[in-house]
Amino acid sequence: MSAYPADHKQQASAWFESLRDRICAEFERLEDELAATRHRDLPAGRFERTSWKRPEPSGADGGGGTMAVMRGRLFEKVGVNISTVHGTFSEEFRKQVAGAAESGAFWASGVSLVAHMRSPHVPAVHMNTRHIVTTQSWFGGGADLTPMFPEAHGADAADFHAALRTACDRYDADHYPRFKKWCDEYFYLPHRKEPRGLGGIFYDNLHSGHWDKDFGFTKAVGEAFLAIYPEIVRRHMSKDWSDEERRQQLIRRGRYVEFNLLYDRGTLFGLKTGGNIDAILMSLPPEVMWP
Amino acid sequence: MSAYPADHKQQASAWFESLRDRICAEFERLEDELAATRHRDLPAGRFERTSWKRPEPSGADGGGGTMAVMRGRLFEKVGVNISTVHGTFSEEFRKQVAGAAESGAFWASGVSLVAHMRSPHVPAVHMNTRHIVTTQSWFGGGADLTPMFPEAHGADAADFHAALRTACDRYDADHYPRFKKWCDEYFYLPHRKEPRGLGGIFYDNLHSGHWDKDFGFTKAVGEAFLAIYPEIVRRHMSKDWSDEERRQQLIRRGRYVEFNLLYDRGTLFGLKTGGNIDAILMSLPPEVMWP
Repeated sequence: MSAYPADHKQQASAWFESLRDRICAEFERLEDELAATRHRDLPAGRFERTSWKRPEPSGADGGGGTMAVMRGRLFEKVGVNISTVHGTFSEEFRKQVAGAAESGAFWASGVSLVAHMRSPHVPAVHMNTRHIVTTQSWFGGGADLTPMFPEAHGADAADFHAALRTACDRYDADHYPRFKKWCDEYFYLPHRKEPRGLGGIFYDNLHSGHWDKDFGFTKAVGEAFLAIYPEIVRRHMSKDWSDEERRQQLIRRGRYVEFNLLYDRGTLFGLKTGGNIDAILMSLPPEVMWP
Repeated sequence: MSAYPADHKQQASAWFESLRDRICAEFERLEDELAATRHRDLPAGRFERTSWKRPEPSGADGGGGTMAVMRGRLFEKVGVNISTVHGTFSEEFRKQVAGAAESGAFWASGVSLVAHMRSPHVPAVHMNTRHIVTTQSWFGGGADLTPMFPEAHGADAADFHAALRTACDRYDADHYPRFKKWCDEYFYLPHRKEPRGLGGIFYDNLHSGHWDKDFGFTKAVGEAFLAIYPEIVRRHMSKDWSDEERRQQLIRRGRYVEFNLLYDRGTLFGLKTGGNIDAILMSLPPEVMWP
């Protein structure tokens, strides 16, 4: 880890924070814009931030993070969490993380977002980018779209994928096909034999040997998300919906819960290593049905 | 497996079916009795039964089961499932099951029940008993109570435990303390550092060398459940509740989902071995919140 420029950590975590700020500002703008549908009389939502510390098992400082949560009239529940943590992995986890086997030392910083919308016509979304440093260093992340009625969102899926593809293609012609496939494989529920949503991209262990390039790509993924998701929200946010459509939304959200608790590596890793419960489970939908 | 009397399988599965019938009849009686609270104007619920077959991967007959589900005015969602399945475990699972390592042959029969109530004042409950035969044979099962406001159910917990203790003590003085502790350890959410409910008993691999005794005990657990749970329901079913109490109920149900999807061995085993999804996930509550 000693050969790693400290400035890189600083650059990455500062960028995750600035992306968080811009996403929160844009989502609050969407709350302000809402002029129709059944919840327009509620006050426009605003993010509330809560910081948390992560002590190492020894009691030493292990970094921490900030949850930003908004419960609004358009966004039923959206969490935009950042964390920058460091310390020593337990013996058990060292073997599971590249470059951690010997000393177990790690540093990790990232931004993670899940949005569940009041309207069944507005897709839920997930976005995450992170930078991890052990004796190696790499980037990971992705973004994927989960409409409640997938068959009605062909154009959204096409535009969401096109935005991510453009970001990918600027850096490496292999990125998009590889990371799209990785996303399709990752966000799949074997017990239901169905995908979680309409896909996007997912990547991990990205270390091309050119830090600036990999960081540039990671920034491009965040920028692509910030450009396309609000556009998709605006397309659908003024349409009204029926009680039956709301019910279908709550049932589909059950699949989201099943995926996150049964399969999601980040969730399971966090819960089983004593991470911040509220931050980890922020991804769970506010209301769900298994009728 | 050849030394095992076929008649024992028949006796066990027939008893699970008869227990199912008596539980369903008693729960329908409770639906009829409901004379107060906000849902009394709904029709009294009735169980609907759906049978399913379990083909072996080879296509051979692998047994099956019957789900009995009631969505009533008192029971928001209750499933009483029986199954009697047989076949050959995959190579991967043979090592995990006593007596299955060599040929992988197994036979299993059981009844499994989870009830989620409309009223936040009526505890949710789980009960399960099963008989498993490989080259060995044993019984397993248990029952546990999950009130939404645990501090208000001291008397219910005492009576529920007393009923199970009486059943245990008739067979073995060690059963109750051992199986109560097993239950407390099993139904615990490490990530929340909290128990799922107020406990009960949990046992597995019970083979004392006296089949009649172990079967007798398993029947006594079923009888104890059938005697005490309806009594607890009657104590609370006529009390009205506030919207805030309902909200607290939906939040507590989230813990139930977290437990079942993160930790419950039966759920994970079933989902990962291609079991019947609807029967396995019948345990999930009909409405849940993670606000």
